[in-house]
Amino acid sequence: MTDERKSNVFHLGPHTLHIPAEVHQINRQRLVQSLRNDTSIPPGSVVLLMGGKSKNMYDTDIEPLFRQESYFHWTFGVRESNFYGAIDITTGKSYLFAPKLDESYAIWMGKLYTTDDFRNRYEVDEVHYTEQLLDVLLGLGAKVLHTLVGVNTDSNLPTYEATFSGIDRFQVDGTKLHRHIAEQRVTKTPQELEIIRYTNRVSSEAHIEVMRSIRPGMTEYQLESVFRHYCYYNGGARLMSYNCICGSGPNGAILHYGHAAAPNDKTIQDGDMCLFDMGCEYYCYASDITCSYPSNGKFTPEQRFIYNAVLKANRAVMAASKPGVSWRDLHVLAESIELEQLRDYGLLQGDVDEMVRARLGFIFMPHGMGHLLGIDVHDVGGYLDHCPERSNEMGLNKLRTCRQLKEGMVLTIEPGIYFVDAQLKRAKDDPNLSRFFIWEKIDQFRQFGGVRIEDNIYITADGVELLTKVPRSVEEIEKVMAEGRKRTVTFPQQGLA
Amino acid sequence: MTDERKSNVFHLGPHTLHIPAEVHQINRQRLVQSLRNDTSIPPGSVVLLMGGKSKNMYDTDIEPLFRQESYFHWTFGVRESNFYGAIDITTGKSYLFAPKLDESYAIWMGKLYTTDDFRNRYEVDEVHYTEQLLDVLLGLGAKVLHTLVGVNTDSNLPTYEATFSGIDRFQVDGTKLHRHIAEQRVTKTPQELEIIRYTNRVSSEAHIEVMRSIRPGMTEYQLESVFRHYCYYNGGARLMSYNCICGSGPNGAILHYGHAAAPNDKTIQDGDMCLFDMGCEYYCYASDITCSYPSNGKFTPEQRFIYNAVLKANRAVMAASKPGVSWRDLHVLAESIELEQLRDYGLLQGDVDEMVRARLGFIFMPHGMGHLLGIDVHDVGGYLDHCPERSNEMGLNKLRTCRQLKEGMVLTIEPGIYFVDAQLKRAKDDPNLSRFFIWEKIDQFRQFGGVRIEDNIYITADGVELLTKVPRSVEEIEKVMAEGRKRTVTFPQQGLA
Repeated sequence: MTDERKSNVFHLGPHTLHIPAEVHQINRQRLVQSLRNDTSIPPGSVVLLMGGKSKNMYDTDIEPLFRQESYFHWTFGVRESNFYGAIDITTGKSYLFAPKLDESYAIWMGKLYTTDDFRNRYEVDEVHYTEQLLDVLLGLGAKVLHTLVGVNTDSNLPTYEATFSGIDRFQVDGTKLHRHIAEQRVTKTPQELEIIRYTNRVSSEAHIEVMRSIRPGMTEYQLESVFRHYCYYNGGARLMSYNCICGSGPNGAILHYGHAAAPNDKTIQDGDMCLFDMGCEYYCYASDITCSYPSNGKFTPEQRFIYNAVLKANRAVMAASKPGVSWRDLHVLAESIELEQLRDYGLLQGDVDEMVRARLGFIFMPHGMGHLLGIDVHDVGGYLDHCPERSNEMGLNKLRTCRQLKEGMVLTIEPGIYFVDAQLKRAKDDPNLSRFFIWEKIDQFRQFGGVRIEDNIYITADGVELLTKVPRSVEEIEKVMAEGRKRTVTFPQQGLA
Repeated sequence: MTDERKSNVFHLGPHTLHIPAEVHQINRQRLVQSLRNDTSIPPGSVVLLMGGKSKNMYDTDIEPLFRQESYFHWTFGVRESNFYGAIDITTGKSYLFAPKLDESYAIWMGKLYTTDDFRNRYEVDEVHYTEQLLDVLLGLGAKVLHTLVGVNTDSNLPTYEATFSGIDRFQVDGTKLHRHIAEQRVTKTPQELEIIRYTNRVSSEAHIEVMRSIRPGMTEYQLESVFRHYCYYNGGARLMSYNCICGSGPNGAILHYGHAAAPNDKTIQDGDMCLFDMGCEYYCYASDITCSYPSNGKFTPEQRFIYNAVLKANRAVMAASKPGVSWRDLHVLAESIELEQLRDYGLLQGDVDEMVRARLGFIFMPHGMGHLLGIDVHDVGGYLDHCPERSNEMGLNKLRTCRQLKEGMVLTIEPGIYFVDAQLKRAKDDPNLSRFFIWEKIDQFRQFGGVRIEDNIYITADGVELLTKVPRSVEEIEKVMAEGRKRTVTFPQQGLA
C-alpha cells in the first residue's frame, strides 16, 4: 500500500473517486496561458506560491488535521504541509519545494518521501527541498516573482502570500497574480466538475440517509453525526466543507446555527420544521446542500406552503440560470417569487414590485440567494476588478457575487424564508416596511424557524446541470421519510447502554 | 431550549453527562488558594487570562469549530470565543469580559446573550464587555496583573498570554501564574474525574463497536468513522482528543499514522494486526485509548505472543502505580518486561538489565510509556521547575514527565512493541545494540507493524482506578470479535449504492 500512496492518483479506497494529478497540470496550464496573455508581465517572471503550514492548537502539541491552502491545492494538489511551489511562466515548467525532514520523523510519520517520490506523486517537472528554493529560482534566471496578493471578498482577509528568506534578491510583484488565478478558479474544468459531482453525490445520499433516520426526540447533532458518518464511511470524505447546521424549530432561523456555543444541541420536537445545511469535502472540493422538512415526516399546511414558496423560487432561478444572466437579477427573482407567495397566502399585502424596491426580501431572506462554489465553499472571484461591484442595497449587499453567469461556473441556488425575531422587529419599526405586513398572520409563524432549499449547479452552454440529487417535492420527501420510518432507529435518551 | 442553553449546566442532551459550572468555581478556588500561599505575590494582584480567539481557515470565511484554550477552559469553562477572564486574588472574585457583538450577529448566531445571561451561565461574580476591561481592572485597584507565561514542554511552544490595549497601565508579572495553574491542573478534582470517566466510557464503548464492525477488506478510515460516529451519536462527543490513528499491518509501526498525507487509507488485509489509537473529547476533556488486535478476530501465535508481552508490561505498570512511585522507573519496568519477553521468545539474547542500560527498549518502544491526561491529551505540568528534569538518555528523553505519582493524577499507561524499519536499522548499525538481536528471527516480524495497549488511570490514595473498560485479554478480545462477526456489516468497495 505504500506504493499506492505514492501513486499519481489520489483516492481513498476502491469505492471512492480516483483523481489523477493531471487535474492540477491542467490548472497550471490554464494559469500560464492567462498570464502569458497579460502583456504587462515581463520576461523572467515566475509564479511563487506558499503551501499551508501545519499549526498547533494554541500552545499544545495537538496538530489539527492539515488542510491545504486553497490556491495551492488548485495549483499543485499537494497533501503535505509546508511546501512551496513555483511556475516559470516562460517555460511553463513547474517546481515543488518540500521541507527536508529529519530522519527521526519516519518513526512518527512513516517512510519519508524522497524528492523523486514527490515528483511522481504530483507530476511536476522538478522537486527540490525548500532549502534549495533560492538557488533554484536564481538558477532559473527568475527576475520577477509573482506572489498572491489580494483580498478575499467573503472574509475581507488578505490572501496567503509566499515569503522566504532571500526573496529580497528578486523583484516581487503582488499586483497581477491574484486576478489571474482567481479568475481561473471561477470556471471549473471537466476534471474539477467530476470531483464536485462526486461530493454532491456523496452529500446527497447522506442527506437522504438523514431523512430516513430522523425521529422526534433525537438531539439535532445526532443527525449531524449520521451525515458525517455516511460521507466518511461511504465516500471517504473526512472533512466537511463547513460546520454542519442542524436547526430544528426556531433554530432553523439562525443562519449559522451549530457553532460551538449553540452546537446543534436542541431536542427535536414532533412537528418541528428542520433545516439541515450540510456538505462534505473530498480532495478539498466542496459541496453545500440544504434540505428542509418536518421532523415527523408529514408537512402541515403551513409548512407545505412556506416550503413550496421557497421551492418555487429555487426552481425559477434554476430555470433562468444560463450564461449571460446577472446573478443579482436572479436574487431579485427569488425575492419576488417568495414575496408574491407570502402575499397570496395572506402574510403580506400590497404590490410585490414595491416590496422588492423597499428591500422587503431582506427581512425574510437575510443572505444572498447563492454563491460560487469550488475548493472553497464560498469560492473566490465574486468581486474581481472587472466584475460588477457589491451593491449598497439592503439584502443585495449580502450577495457574494453580482457577476453574469458564465459556462463552467459552479454555484449554489439557496433561497430561503425565515422568521427571524430581529428581522421582524426591524420591519415593524420601519413604517416603509411595516405597511406590507399583516402582523396577526405573521405572529403565527414566530416559532416556525425557516426553510432553505439549496442545490449546487454547474452552468452549461445554455442552462444548468443540477448536481444535487435529493428529494425536493413535498411528495418525494414524504415518501422517503415514510420509507425511513419503517426502519428501527435507536438513539440514546436515558444514558448509554 | 434557549433557556436550556443559558442554564449553568452543560450537557448535550439527556443521555449525556451533565456538568455544572461549579467545576470551574472549584478550580478557581484551588488556584486562588495556591496563589495566596505564595508569599511573593503582593497585594493588589489580579490573574488575567485571555480566552481563545476564533480563527479563519487561511483567507477564507470558514471558521473551523471553535475549541477553547485549555487554561481558560479549566478556569472559566467558557464556550464562546474572544473572552477575557480575571480573578482578584485578594477577594477571590472572578470576572468575565465578553466581546460586544453588533445586533446583526443575532441573524447569524442566534439571540445575543446579555452579560447577565453569561453571569448565570458561568457563575462568575461579574460579567462585563471587553471594552470595559481596563476600567473594571482599574476600579478593582489592580496593581499587578499575573499573566500566563510559560513553555508547554510537549510542544516547546509558549503559552497563550493575555494582552489588551491599556495593559501598560499595570505592572505585568508573567513569572508566577504558570507554575501555580499548571500544578493545579496536574491533579484532578472529583468533578473533573467524573468527566474523564465519561470520556473513557464513551471511547471504550466506541472501541468495542469498532472491534465488532471490523472486517478484512475495509479501508482503515471506515473504522475511524465508526468510532467517531459512536462517540458523537451516543456520547455527544463532537471532537476527538487527537487525530485518529488506525494503522493496520505495517502501518501499526507508524506512531502518528493517520495524518493528512497518510489518512488511514490502506485496505485492511486478512490477518493484519491492527493498532487503533482513538479517544473522544467531551467538554474539552480528553480520553486516549489504544486497542490492538488482528483484523480477522483470531490471533496467530506470533500476534498472541507480542500482544501478551505488551499486556504484561501494561498490567505490571498498572499494579505498581501509586503515589510516590517515579514514572521514570515505571517506564523502565515496562521496557524490562518487554525485553525479557522478546528474549524468551527468541528474538533477543543476553541479559535484560544490560539491554535496559544499552537503552534497547527505545528500539521497540520509541515513545514514552505514558503521560498525564486532562484537558489536553498530553496534559500540562510534566516538567515544572520543582519536578525531575527530562532525561538525556535514549528513550527516557521521550517521557513527557518523570514525576513521582500523586493522588489525583490521571495518566495513560501505553507500552508498545513496534517493528520500525528505521529503528531496526539503527540497532543493526550499532554494535552495542546489535549484539542482543537474533536477526533472522527479527526479520520474520518486519511486516508485523506494532501493538500498543493504552489505558487511562486515576491515581488513588494507594493505587489506581482503571478508567478504560475494553476487552484486554486475548480471550476477551476474540470473544467480542466473534460476536461482532455474527452481524452483517456492509461497506462499500465497488462504488456507492
